[in-house]
Amino acid sequence: MQYSDRILKTPSSFIRNILKVTDAEDVISFAGGLPNPISFPIDALKTSIDHAITTNGSRLFQYSSTQGYAPLREYIAAKYQRLHGLDIQADDVFITTGSQQALELLGKVLINKDDGIIIEEPGYLGAIQAFTLSEPTFHGVTLENDGLNLEELEQALQQPNVKCVYTVPNFQNPTGLTYSKEKREQICEIVAKYDVVLIEDDPYGELRFQGEALPYIGAGKLANSVLLGSFSKTVTPGMRLGFLITKNKELMQYIETAKQASDLHTNIFAQYVIYDYLANNDYMEHVQKIIGLYKEQSQTMLDAMAAFFPAHVDYTKPDGGMFIWATLNNGASALEVFHQAMEQKVAFVPGDPFYTNKTNVNTLRLNYTNATPEVIREGIQRLASIL
Amino acid sequence: MQYSDRILKTPSSFIRNILKVTDAEDVISFAGGLPNPISFPIDALKTSIDHAITTNGSRLFQYSSTQGYAPLREYIAAKYQRLHGLDIQADDVFITTGSQQALELLGKVLINKDDGIIIEEPGYLGAIQAFTLSEPTFHGVTLENDGLNLEELEQALQQPNVKCVYTVPNFQNPTGLTYSKEKREQICEIVAKYDVVLIEDDPYGELRFQGEALPYIGAGKLANSVLLGSFSKTVTPGMRLGFLITKNKELMQYIETAKQASDLHTNIFAQYVIYDYLANNDYMEHVQKIIGLYKEQSQTMLDAMAAFFPAHVDYTKPDGGMFIWATLNNGASALEVFHQAMEQKVAFVPGDPFYTNKTNVNTLRLNYTNATPEVIREGIQRLASIL
Repeated sequence: MQYSDRILKTPSSFIRNILKVTDAEDVISFAGGLPNPISFPIDALKTSIDHAITTNGSRLFQYSSTQGYAPLREYIAAKYQRLHGLDIQADDVFITTGSQQALELLGKVLINKDDGIIIEEPGYLGAIQAFTLSEPTFHGVTLENDGLNLEELEQALQQPNVKCVYTVPNFQNPTGLTYSKEKREQICEIVAKYDVVLIEDDPYGELRFQGEALPYIGAGKLANSVLLGSFSKTVTPGMRLGFLITKNKELMQYIETAKQASDLHTNIFAQYVIYDYLANNDYMEHVQKIIGLYKEQSQTMLDAMAAFFPAHVDYTKPDGGMFIWATLNNGASALEVFHQAMEQKVAFVPGDPFYTNKTNVNTLRLNYTNATPEVIREGIQRLASIL
Repeated sequence: MQYSDRILKTPSSFIRNILKVTDAEDVISFAGGLPNPISFPIDALKTSIDHAITTNGSRLFQYSSTQGYAPLREYIAAKYQRLHGLDIQADDVFITTGSQQALELLGKVLINKDDGIIIEEPGYLGAIQAFTLSEPTFHGVTLENDGLNLEELEQALQQPNVKCVYTVPNFQNPTGLTYSKEKREQICEIVAKYDVVLIEDDPYGELRFQGEALPYIGAGKLANSVLLGSFSKTVTPGMRLGFLITKNKELMQYIETAKQASDLHTNIFAQYVIYDYLANNDYMEHVQKIIGLYKEQSQTMLDAMAAFFPAHVDYTKPDGGMFIWATLNNGASALEVFHQAMEQKVAFVPGDPFYTNKTNVNTLRLNYTNATPEVIREGIQRLASIL
């Protein structure tokens, strides 16, 4: 059997593979990226399931439209109008099987083999995976504490056949970093000079536990802006509902064709249920509960790191989201440290899979959303003992 | 904006586009391919939703495994062991977002640009769409009343870089035709001589209303056999649950990587619910109800065609499934007839989108699963008046 070039190039998920090792009961794992189950409003969803079925009957179970359930798209459009002042209509919103699928569809629609994709370095490994299926040339641009390095960005944009810039402006995965207001404006100005799509992937934006919400980089400003959102971090990831927003009608039409060919349409049962939940519950109050929990967990981990980590370890201090990023300034390989850590029954994700062209890096990702304060402290202490 | 070559080549769904025209209330439409809502066991699914949530809680809402929910995969494996005598284990089963996604994943994993795909002519347009994203060379092989034309098949297999043969052996879409036992054996023998994947897509196989169930062509016999199945035609299409079965471990591993990169995993809520439904209900009894209905609808349509259609129209007489295929032997273009039919307020799908290299064909597809006997008779009479 001969397989395709692109599948031979595509990394299988490093994280999913190490999770198989780190799942043992006596391991304290900061490796995952799972939302805390508190973020699933199960009772309210049960009520919405009953209500949606009673109201709409067989429509929840039949084939449905490729672009997604109209009332859900209207809800999303209205929310972005209200909260972000963006001129978004329902037809600018497209429902996807999680925002992971939105990334893969964008790759399909935009990228020929060897076309350029600009990506944060380090960047979201799910995006690296999704885009790799289109066999692009990645141009990594250093992610600094306040956003992309502008000189590198400008240089990368001048490379041949660059089609898009991929960013996670709020509480980035893997670093937890957030772009500053100034950097957002500067990036918008630079990107506006080129015929490229600016993708802003924002699964964590609502989970801000300190500081002020900032305007998007390109949404509402750039003609080729694409904004991605998700219900995975605030309602349920298991139902796989994400969405893509763009005012570019031609791009939207190609996304629709790609989606039809890929899986016809997103689970319509889930779309009715989530819409009913959003329409009949205080979503913002629910999000506040998640924020309260993650803020405490994040602070507990940062306090433990301050208390126990040696001085040669630097780390980010996120204003929201789910991750802290640590750098081992003694030059140790995080992958080697990972194996030592597993002997101490504590796990994290070594930085390697977040880079498109580096291995044996000295950086690592820690997730704090799925452990109690006691367990977080114990885990950080174990980790500190081998750093 | 420059889009990718492959999206520019991919047809947007002809059917989805004409459905927008044929959806008007006064049109009798035989154009769709929707299961009758009787096939959705809504009350039993509601019970299963409650039961699955009560039993498994937050696991229905959290991220989950890429290959799919293990008990559902075990159920499917056991069913294929029991009903088809195939040596299928849970690890040979992979859950997809409808079987449409399985087609797209197979394209990703197997096809480099210009590699060959052998496909029935006429063939399932969703497969043509899904595969086109991989920019293959299609080799159409005539679908005869008892299956693929064997000489054309052998010739096509000798073309360079042919990677797979795509078949719908039972009640094919669009023709309603079923491969004979002899043709199945002959095709298996021929395909066995080549290093290709034989894909058997079987969404309708359980909906047989006459004749005897036949063994698969390659499943259980060929090392590179892939069998596709779906819950869309017997439980619910809206929840988008399909599956892929193969004993080829290497192929399965690449499918898993492609799926991770495409949408991480299939909606796990739906997997728990459908599994609970299958485990706690008499599925075969439910399928019998659908069969009873479709048998009557199919017979009504065939009787009306016999009574009203002119002699120059030939048509298939399906033993199951959802479609009848008609040929206008006076050489009329089905696309032109379609426009005349719409004036008479009756709709069907002209044959064009089911071919990879023909237009203005004299064939058309009729669906009978979504109309009452009275409406079927009236629609066929209207159609007959312009043929």
